[in-house]
Amino acid sequence: MRGEARRPLRDVPESAAPARHEILTTPAQPRIRRLVSGRIQPETFMRRHHLATLAVMAVLAAPAVQAQTIFPVDRAEILAGSRFDLKVEFPGLVAADRVAVTVNGRPVAGVFGRAPDFIERENDQPASSIVLRDASLATPGVYNLRATDGEHTASVTWEVYAGGQRQARNVILFVGDGMTVANVTAARILSRGISEGRYNGRLVIDGFPVMATVGTSGVDSIATDSANSAAAYNTGHKSGVNALNVYPSRARDTLAHPRVETLAQIVQRTRGMSVGVVTNTEIQDATPAAVFAHTRRRSDYLPITDQMLASGVDVLMGGGSASLLPQGTPGSRRRDQRNMLDAFRQQGYVFAEDAGSLAEAAAQTGTRRLLGLFNLSNMDGPLDRFYLRRGTVERFPNQPDLTEQVRAALQVLERNPGGFYLMVESGLIDKDNHPLDWERSVYNTIMLDNAVRVARDWAADRNDTMIVVVPDHTHGMAIIGTVDDNRPGRDMRERVGTYAEAGFPNYPPADARGYPPSVDVSRRLAVFYAAYPDYCETFRPSLDGQRVPAVRQGENYVANEDLCRQAGSLRREGNMPRSVNQGVHAVDDGILRAWGPGSERFHGFVDNTYVFRGMAEALGLGQ
Amino acid sequence: MRGEARRPLRDVPESAAPARHEILTTPAQPRIRRLVSGRIQPETFMRRHHLATLAVMAVLAAPAVQAQTIFPVDRAEILAGSRFDLKVEFPGLVAADRVAVTVNGRPVAGVFGRAPDFIERENDQPASSIVLRDASLATPGVYNLRATDGEHTASVTWEVYAGGQRQARNVILFVGDGMTVANVTAARILSRGISEGRYNGRLVIDGFPVMATVGTSGVDSIATDSANSAAAYNTGHKSGVNALNVYPSRARDTLAHPRVETLAQIVQRTRGMSVGVVTNTEIQDATPAAVFAHTRRRSDYLPITDQMLASGVDVLMGGGSASLLPQGTPGSRRRDQRNMLDAFRQQGYVFAEDAGSLAEAAAQTGTRRLLGLFNLSNMDGPLDRFYLRRGTVERFPNQPDLTEQVRAALQVLERNPGGFYLMVESGLIDKDNHPLDWERSVYNTIMLDNAVRVARDWAADRNDTMIVVVPDHTHGMAIIGTVDDNRPGRDMRERVGTYAEAGFPNYPPADARGYPPSVDVSRRLAVFYAAYPDYCETFRPSLDGQRVPAVRQGENYVANEDLCRQAGSLRREGNMPRSVNQGVHAVDDGILRAWGPGSERFHGFVDNTYVFRGMAEALGLGQ
Repeated sequence: MRGEARRPLRDVPESAAPARHEILTTPAQPRIRRLVSGRIQPETFMRRHHLATLAVMAVLAAPAVQAQTIFPVDRAEILAGSRFDLKVEFPGLVAADRVAVTVNGRPVAGVFGRAPDFIERENDQPASSIVLRDASLATPGVYNLRATDGEHTASVTWEVYAGGQRQARNVILFVGDGMTVANVTAARILSRGISEGRYNGRLVIDGFPVMATVGTSGVDSIATDSANSAAAYNTGHKSGVNALNVYPSRARDTLAHPRVETLAQIVQRTRGMSVGVVTNTEIQDATPAAVFAHTRRRSDYLPITDQMLASGVDVLMGGGSASLLPQGTPGSRRRDQRNMLDAFRQQGYVFAEDAGSLAEAAAQTGTRRLLGLFNLSNMDGPLDRFYLRRGTVERFPNQPDLTEQVRAALQVLERNPGGFYLMVESGLIDKDNHPLDWERSVYNTIMLDNAVRVARDWAADRNDTMIVVVPDHTHGMAIIGTVDDNRPGRDMRERVGTYAEAGFPNYPPADARGYPPSVDVSRRLAVFYAAYPDYCETFRPSLDGQRVPAVRQGENYVANEDLCRQAGSLRREGNMPRSVNQGVHAVDDGILRAWGPGSERFHGFVDNTYVFRGMAEALGLGQ
Repeated sequence: MRGEARRPLRDVPESAAPARHEILTTPAQPRIRRLVSGRIQPETFMRRHHLATLAVMAVLAAPAVQAQTIFPVDRAEILAGSRFDLKVEFPGLVAADRVAVTVNGRPVAGVFGRAPDFIERENDQPASSIVLRDASLATPGVYNLRATDGEHTASVTWEVYAGGQRQARNVILFVGDGMTVANVTAARILSRGISEGRYNGRLVIDGFPVMATVGTSGVDSIATDSANSAAAYNTGHKSGVNALNVYPSRARDTLAHPRVETLAQIVQRTRGMSVGVVTNTEIQDATPAAVFAHTRRRSDYLPITDQMLASGVDVLMGGGSASLLPQGTPGSRRRDQRNMLDAFRQQGYVFAEDAGSLAEAAAQTGTRRLLGLFNLSNMDGPLDRFYLRRGTVERFPNQPDLTEQVRAALQVLERNPGGFYLMVESGLIDKDNHPLDWERSVYNTIMLDNAVRVARDWAADRNDTMIVVVPDHTHGMAIIGTVDDNRPGRDMRERVGTYAEAGFPNYPPADARGYPPSVDVSRRLAVFYAAYPDYCETFRPSLDGQRVPAVRQGENYVANEDLCRQAGSLRREGNMPRSVNQGVHAVDDGILRAWGPGSERFHGFVDNTYVFRGMAEALGLGQ
């Protein structure tokens, strides 16, 4: 139960949480342009033709209801010189010699210097595709790609852009996973205190001079998951739910979807820059994996681990050693005897397993590659590590704080004079918002802010580092007032104070770490979520470990009766399908904050793809 | 029922909605500084001494548990030269000759040029106060006020500041009352459309270059109402729930609390600038009244109307004629025969009662004072006015749109070459968020954006006008995905799609006004609120008029069974006290957006008082 609770339904590999909502039974298809429609009947049986030219191909079929689907999708913005897989999916079988694909009127093979592959029967189904891996366009401008089967034509338009002069040597991207406005407000209240309506201090991110709102929707839905959104940050391409740096196509193999190059790959390939990934979730989880991995299914933890090894990313830190330890080792998720830790060591990585060995490894001036794995699964957050000693703290008592991780990462990465791209995720914000465990989520937000301070202080006098702090999506979380145990009333809901009756909470002042040493006070924040499964609201913090709102009962999830038995708790029927076991992401815009050279380009409303573009432009990429 | 539903519990005068939560039975007291504590026993019976000097006064009493309360409160930021009432409240009776009040060590009478009044028994209770009305401090700096009764001393520190060079001739403050992140995201989805994760357009406010987060808490609570927050915007002083431009003191008379001068009064008094107030709520409602009125109780609609007449505000537009029409006129709220419309006419106001007469009045080049009252109560929003024809649209068929109101206001105000301060409220965003009527609330958000466009276009080539767009507080509102009538499932909650299953809603494209002509579509946004009373969630828009979630039953509010009878509706027990009949405000930060000269000063996190300060500094006030 404990292990399951730490793994929100949507944010884990299928092997860990077998709820039926977790896997897409059919990959979601983005909307396609239907310029001509009709039905194509299969008549040919060609397979995997390599095409010398795609200038003209014959359709041997009747009209199709769907026209072609093209990846990258319409309105894609593509960094000049970055790599992407071009794919055209025909709804039925087509003949290679009737297909024509052009870019701004020129045959595609001429534009990209080589011809795509023709797949006559993709997935052994009567539907043809063409694929050109690792395409790129070096010259900024507007590109119109048209694909015809001789009868039906579809087209997409892309913008190819390039950065100007390089403004930043380094870029640090902090992702507050699921960080909502309420997370930040509550972090300020708990960490800095408030009296007579004025805060007694501000968060570090409160002082960031640049702010924008971010749209988080993907090609398949207004609602994103963390894979989808992190992919947009790391590639500048929109993707779909559960997809990491690929367009969600109809390919059956999760590793065969059209890939797009990541910022990490681009700066490694074109600039020799270093790359770091720091998280407190499993290192294979969506947000960290989006720096280097490509798969349609974020739960592909073992392939993601292989891709991590192949990525050449210099600094890797988080939880998730379960995917590296050989089968048979306690906690291993592997199905083979391979010891991936050894594989990393063989590639020059120094391995750290706790705060002490991390600091030691980072301090060694010879350390250029560092792998720190501090937990089998997700790491524990500050509320458990420092105060409550719950979660897996007894088993992993010396997990580093995110501040220590960032400090160590900077120590290693700054050894490359060519600069670096560092992605830091405070992933437990989301992991705790999912089970409606707002106190843990807010402590994780304070920790993010502490970690941003480390980076900002490091960068303060350099004037060569841009820092971006952004959620990947939000939750329906809100601070409504306070819950006061001393308010009269027959049950807990009568103890919720709103407006003037809320007053101020009575958390003890924050300690030197920036956290109140206790959350179990008599007048505490009243925080609620807008979306939830069947559960019992206790109006109290979950001191025994992360909250478990719902438990499985047959096909459905029902309220966890452990919470229902608490005095005064309120039984609530969920407002989402019964297959959902916890809170879900919200579609509401996120708030981006930024600091340092190049950051001024973020303002107003931006798409999540623009986070990539802003980083790429600040680094002067694409020239 | 209909009328009551249009009046959220917290946002109306006590005369209109008699729920018991509406009035503070005891004015909330801000926290006070307790430097010395003890109990004072009453021994003297002096009354209303006028003090030649407050240098030394005797305490004729034992120690008090509470020390003095001082207004303005500690850490107040005060515009140089602006007026404020200084008040010191002693917890018990004190003798005038033992009281000493100093500012930076100097006797208070010397600092302010006159001595305060001494009130020996305030409210006929054994507790003394001193009051100095219309004080001001002309010189920027740090001021420490100490008040002693000879035995106990309290002190507060103020910062007095002044603007530099004037950057803006005009300032336009748009208040999106209760405008939450989800309001803006949903407005963009409905108004601009979204496909493949990219919006097909942006809102006007999306293009504003400046953004900041705003803290909304008041002196008495983390949770604000609209009065409290609008007072902060208009005076730069924090206030308390239900209070308009006064500090919530212990005075029994709601009009006797310590007042602070508003931006409107300052620019009228010191610059001869014009002032405009535009809203679609009653003109006496908290946000519009905060431009000119002073009262501890926002529901003082008749005194507020008197203050409005006395204010000299040049342009006044909204609903609320009920408070101006003589008793006996249908819909009048007055208890006398006075026709306040005549009183305004006598002071040179042209009166407009609908869109036609408004346009006509504004176009008359001689019009310098304009009063437009377009509804007895709150006006109707665009969903009702343009599409559903519900609310009071049949009775008031020609109410102007907020865009027309702003256009007319600008036409009149620009006739003053000295510039103007215009406050525009889209107040129905909040009025519809309260009863969980998110569609109406989002249409009101689109209308706000349309109105901002009018102002921005007007100001575009002038380079002399700063525009600020800001909520006064938020709601616990979130977009969770979509509700799809075609999704299988035994009840409505099974039709909620999250993540990839949300897909995209199928609202028709927006018309020329910027609104989809229908909200009743088969795949619509799933929007939920985090705080609510007992109610039945229908998962559908309320087409018959504003939603009425709960109805009164004895002392409590219970679910409105009309909604519970709708097919598939979900009965939900509220998470707030049973005395609450609808959703409440959230404590989460608001998002400020700004544009034009002087706007660059807004960045990072700011207190709501800084909105005033930013406007005052952009206007170069305080010199």
